[in-house]
Amino acid sequence: MPTNDQIFLVSRPAPHSKASTDNFKFRQSQTPELQLGQVLVRHHYLSLDPYMRGRMNDNKSYAPPQPLGEVMLGGTVGDVVESCSDQFKPGDKVVGMGGWQLYSVAPADALRKVDDLRIPLSVYLGAVGMPGVAAWYGLTQICKPKSGQTVAVSAASGAVGSVVGQLAKLHGCRVVGIAGGAAKCQYVVDELGFDACVDYKAHANSKDLYLALKAATPSGIDGYFENVGGAVLDAALSRMNPFGRIALCGMIAGYEREAVPLAHPALILVNRLRLEGFIVTEHQDLWPQALSELSCLVVSGQLKCPESMVQGLEAAPQAFLDLLTGKNFGKQLVRLV
Amino acid sequence: MPTNDQIFLVSRPAPHSKASTDNFKFRQSQTPELQLGQVLVRHHYLSLDPYMRGRMNDNKSYAPPQPLGEVMLGGTVGDVVESCSDQFKPGDKVVGMGGWQLYSVAPADALRKVDDLRIPLSVYLGAVGMPGVAAWYGLTQICKPKSGQTVAVSAASGAVGSVVGQLAKLHGCRVVGIAGGAAKCQYVVDELGFDACVDYKAHANSKDLYLALKAATPSGIDGYFENVGGAVLDAALSRMNPFGRIALCGMIAGYEREAVPLAHPALILVNRLRLEGFIVTEHQDLWPQALSELSCLVVSGQLKCPESMVQGLEAAPQAFLDLLTGKNFGKQLVRLV
Repeated sequence: MPTNDQIFLVSRPAPHSKASTDNFKFRQSQTPELQLGQVLVRHHYLSLDPYMRGRMNDNKSYAPPQPLGEVMLGGTVGDVVESCSDQFKPGDKVVGMGGWQLYSVAPADALRKVDDLRIPLSVYLGAVGMPGVAAWYGLTQICKPKSGQTVAVSAASGAVGSVVGQLAKLHGCRVVGIAGGAAKCQYVVDELGFDACVDYKAHANSKDLYLALKAATPSGIDGYFENVGGAVLDAALSRMNPFGRIALCGMIAGYEREAVPLAHPALILVNRLRLEGFIVTEHQDLWPQALSELSCLVVSGQLKCPESMVQGLEAAPQAFLDLLTGKNFGKQLVRLV
Repeated sequence: MPTNDQIFLVSRPAPHSKASTDNFKFRQSQTPELQLGQVLVRHHYLSLDPYMRGRMNDNKSYAPPQPLGEVMLGGTVGDVVESCSDQFKPGDKVVGMGGWQLYSVAPADALRKVDDLRIPLSVYLGAVGMPGVAAWYGLTQICKPKSGQTVAVSAASGAVGSVVGQLAKLHGCRVVGIAGGAAKCQYVVDELGFDACVDYKAHANSKDLYLALKAATPSGIDGYFENVGGAVLDAALSRMNPFGRIALCGMIAGYEREAVPLAHPALILVNRLRLEGFIVTEHQDLWPQALSELSCLVVSGQLKCPESMVQGLEAAPQAFLDLLTGKNFGKQLVRLV
């Protein structure tokens, strides 16, 4: 069996503090012999996602903490190198939760076979994977935009936000992004077809941010997809139209600091809004429909998939920390081949 | 035509400040002659409701401000003394929006005929009126409690909260109130059948309030009905179970001060909660069903209707201000006969 490169979580960040590369440790080990029903996968790409930051804490949350002294969890795509299952044969391309390592051993039913002829493998960790389904779910099941309405989305150039905006355009909406930095804003407008994008870093205080968002949403906001929280959520809430819908998918602004309050909760009542938080992995019944639609859109060129790529497993910890501060552009991946 | 006693709104409170009796003025005038299709009603009871405070402001809100120099708006119940409509005859008992005055002239289609044989007239302004329908709507359409789940409600002894809790008991729920003062708490437990009630005035800081609510909700909260906001909402949000539902009906804690922030909005995401604000008058399609159910429950004695009554129109302004600070007990009414 091959030698495996792995990254372990070895310590937790202090409460409400930033994670650091010291929380991770690189190790090598032998991959174990396969048991009946198991498959050995060689990873081509590792997905880095904001939710991983939550797992590094020891808090009570919707998912148990990532245990210390184990390989960091994470989505992976790769090919089967050895199989003790009827369901897979060597060479099959599979998506799974292989973690931060070159190889993983998984039970066959924890893997999903994918086709890399029409869709690049890496996209199964982005637009045709968990982030894409999150975008699809929050937009279609919670924001429920109608043609002609305005949809806004934060972290607009990210793995989830970029899909939200493109899907909303396909629904006939005016789409306004919120992103950090002029380059990201320009990208989502010029390349992804958003109607406008507000650079939150260019508006230092909450009033300026609100005014910039107001200028970009002259008819208000009907559906808002939240990936950030904090001041960005305050600004969006102040622009919501009556009966607006807000999908809470992520609140990355608060992942490494004390709780960020919501300034004007009474707006939820005054404007009869609906806010709903969701975790996409809890809606498996809708994944087949979502993945089918997302695949078609990628194959037909209607859904673009921006990616940020770093090379090699050792680059994962720093790339993950950079993701948390918004240094990535589109889906953050680690190439392992 | 009879002489009418009326109370006008003559000035607005300063922004984020308390209303005062100076904002109101008592006047007398002649009731006008009836036009075709109009009805003259002599009011027996005037309803005082927290929403009126919002109408005193000049803010953009879901409803236009109450104009200065006009009779204060408000729900009334009374009897027809003169009718130029086929729909009503003298002696009919009717509910309408007659305002803070002894008499009103209304078009027939703005009135609803009610039966005072089995239900006291005043109850049509409470449990079998707008507050009752608000309780019914928020509980059944948003909180959607299942038997065995826990429902919590703030302003538990108020016109809306008292109905919410009693309905939730009929749904087979554990019901926990939040109210201000030991007497209100004891009342909702002993007389209305709540399982527990937390006295928010006995818990000066947010941590103590949270701990008291935690003790009263050992299995967490599945459905929360909000009439108050502020620290009470923070405490309830911290006790919500995954997939819990929160109906925002009122946020009286913030009606006369600067916006009260929500301390931990990330809980909405972590616990996959749904928050929804609503205005009961926007759901007219469900009023017949709600009123029918509420009437049956009152007639059969399954729904009790606590009331606070003051006598005479001149008492209305102070009684209204007292309502805003929670001095009332159950539905606040003004008796005009």
